[in-house]
Amino acid sequence: MASLLNRILPREASFFDIFGALAENVHASAKAFIELLEEFNDVPARVGLIKEYEHKGDDMTHTLMTRLNQTFITPMDREDIHALASAIDDVVDLIDASASRLVLYRVDTVRPGVVELARKLGEATAEVVAAVGMLEKQDQVLQHCIEINRLENECDRICRTLIAQLFEEEKDPVQIIKWKEIIETMETATDKCEDVANVLESVVLKSG
Amino acid sequence: MASLLNRILPREASFFDIFGALAENVHASAKAFIELLEEFNDVPARVGLIKEYEHKGDDMTHTLMTRLNQTFITPMDREDIHALASAIDDVVDLIDASASRLVLYRVDTVRPGVVELARKLGEATAEVVAAVGMLEKQDQVLQHCIEINRLENECDRICRTLIAQLFEEEKDPVQIIKWKEIIETMETATDKCEDVANVLESVVLKSG
Amino acid sequence: MASLLNRILPREASFFDIFGALAENVHASAKAFIELLEEFNDVPARVGLIKEYEHKGDDMTHTLMTRLNQTFITPMDREDIHALASAIDDVVDLIDASASRLVLYRVDTVRPGVVELARKLGEATAEVVAAVGMLEKQDQVLQHCIEINRLENECDRICRTLIAQLFEEEKDPVQIIKWKEIIETMETATDKCEDVANVLESVVLKSG
Repeated sequence: MASLLNRILPREASFFDIFGALAENVHASAKAFIELLEEFNDVPARVGLIKEYEHKGDDMTHTLMTRLNQTFITPMDREDIHALASAIDDVVDLIDASASRLVLYRVDTVRPGVVELARKLGEATAEVVAAVGMLEKQDQVLQHCIEINRLENECDRICRTLIAQLFEEEKDPVQIIKWKEIIETMETATDKCEDVANVLESVVLKSG
Repeated sequence: MASLLNRILPREASFFDIFGALAENVHASAKAFIELLEEFNDVPARVGLIKEYEHKGDDMTHTLMTRLNQTFITPMDREDIHALASAIDDVVDLIDASASRLVLYRVDTVRPGVVELARKLGEATAEVVAAVGMLEKQDQVLQHCIEINRLENECDRICRTLIAQLFEEEKDPVQIIKWKEIIETMETATDKCEDVANVLESVVLKSG
Repeated sequence: MASLLNRILPREASFFDIFGALAENVHASAKAFIELLEEFNDVPARVGLIKEYEHKGDDMTHTLMTRLNQTFITPMDREDIHALASAIDDVVDLIDASASRLVLYRVDTVRPGVVELARKLGEATAEVVAAVGMLEKQDQVLQHCIEINRLENECDRICRTLIAQLFEEEKDPVQIIKWKEIIETMETATDKCEDVANVLESVVLKSG
């Protein structure tokens, strides 16, 4: 039905284009975040770049919501469009929140294991791009959602290991406060990828 | 109206059965959590048992949501079914999060007062079972909701006392970080019991 | 349409009155919170006053929700009424949570900069009053929403500066734990003002 709507009503069809651009933007921010942690030079500039992705995400989400409010016929349920856009936007917000804390807390070295967590998050955002890209044809969306869930479980496991190590190895309570929050913020970003998967799954099952 | 639907459409009727099972599962996890804190032996095994309740809750919630997406006529508003299932699932998630932190943070003794908070949470989950069990006949649901709200207020009071004591008595900042989070996670579990009560109240008032 | 409904159906019309009272109540709590931080005497009594605003907000929200459940025709979408009331209620909850932590954590002096953050929050709640007050006629609501967003950005900036200073200047980890949470709770209150603005914007655009 969605692709029929596309031919008849190109204005509504572009909901899918906007969702695609939102997902690409999230994945670009995840890649910039991985590079930031890997290189760990020019930190403020790299964090600023991630902030730009966050602003871009906000702008696109706003455009989508405005269009949603002005459109009678939509290719998906109105509340699903809203939930999907919010969930995707939350991912980039949390990547930005993780990155900006590196500057805010004047972090000078990245703890071991944190890059691995970021890379796993990057795998999840790549799956978000794939799943959202197939939303219009509704082909293989569920397989990508399963993969997002699997990656979220892995991130959860890595995060727990990092937190346990942090409490065992780090003696400075201030460092514990800072890194506990950075790691947990990253983990929440992967939770939000799972929220994206849940909305997508619900959309596909409804129309199936 | 709900019980009429039950006789005509047994498939939809079992929404109530699934809700009942979800509520029982939450209460079972609360009881396992109280025992864990009371005995405080075999901690990893006991925490693993609570994790199983969490997984079981996830599975049942998923079954419910799938059925919801495939069903035209439901005994309650679709969004209320969704909100109720999510709120019940949040309770067991937070009980699991509280329990698993005992292992993650390598806690070796339980602070005084924490068992009392867990018991009060257990009273709240017992009321959730009672309220959800009466949802189909809509009899006395509101009385149980009032009781859940009362218990949540008590938990809030206990939690505040525990946090104040923690800051007064505990000199090690790392212990403060660990226990502050465990206590607050438990308190959030009781907040979610209140969310369950709010959805139930709204359902009953709408149909009244 | 809303003002026509007011003349025909005064019972429904008073949704706007209740929203106005909810917004005024939030702003009153913000003013009491600013005074508390400025004077910093009679702390428990002043915190108790803010707790009363929180209870009053709860009661009014409950009245609104009950009426919503019993009313067929509403001047705005049901889900928007719900979202708006929840968002407004969240603001006073978080002001209360910020204030009560001053007692809970036995704070004896207010850190520099925190009063400025509270005043900015007070500017945002004043804009919430203005925006909600114009909801019925839908005049200039969007301008006030833009102002709320601007103030939220300023609060975000102030909050980040305060957190950075806290980690640089404060050597006691326990003080860092306490103040980090108070400052972040205040910042979340301004986030919730932005949520109010987002709901209002959505309502106005839909009916435009």
